[in-house]
Amino acid sequence: MAQYSAELDGVFVALGDPTRRAVVRRLGGGPVSVGDLAREFPMTLPSFMKHVRTLEASGLIRTAKAGRVRTCTLNRERLVLLDEWLAEQRRIWEERTDRLEQFVTDVEEQ
Amino acid sequence: MAQYSAELDGVFVALGDPTRRAVVRRLGGGPVSVGDLAREFPMTLPSFMKHVRTLEASGLIRTAKAGRVRTCTLNRERLVLLDEWLAEQRRIWEERTDRLEQFVTDVEEQ
Repeated sequence: MAQYSAELDGVFVALGDPTRRAVVRRLGGGPVSVGDLAREFPMTLPSFMKHVRTLEASGLIRTAKAGRVRTCTLNRERLVLLDEWLAEQRRIWEERTDRLEQFVTDVEEQ
Repeated sequence: MAQYSAELDGVFVALGDPTRRAVVRRLGGGPVSVGDLAREFPMTLPSFMKHVRTLEASGLIRTAKAGRVRTCTLNRERLVLLDEWLAEQRRIWEERTDRLEQFVTDVEEQ
């Protein structure tokens, strides 16, 4: 549970930045080399690499080197964590709505 | 678009903390006073209030004072932003899958 929470922290914080969200969106279309990716973002390579490392640490992307080229791939399963968290919140709201409806029914029947 | 991006930044960063996620989950069950809420979290009141202010600034919760009691309410529409962002990513992956399938079909037909 503590590990799940720390993983969620990492995913949420990583996505709290427009450059990192843009990288995730870009990799949704398929793997891209770090070099090609960096050219699409108007910042220095060291700044861009910091974003790549944050995304990699969160598990949202994976990078692998083949020869001289490092390629970035999206790890979709990491986004499933977000889906699951949102689904849990929805479940809680729906239970509340059910309780409110039951309350209204009980009051009407009195 | 820039405003939408800044709003997403705020929501993601706010949710990148286990206490703040726990507050969102708790308020999913209905509004709670700041005092009652604070008692459920093992930290000082000033530390807790910092989390409340971060959540309020992100738009995820609203607080309103009636007499001496300040009540926190979840703003579900803010979480819809997350839903929409995730849906957009899914759309991008599905387009990619469609393209890959088309490619395989084209190769097989050659």
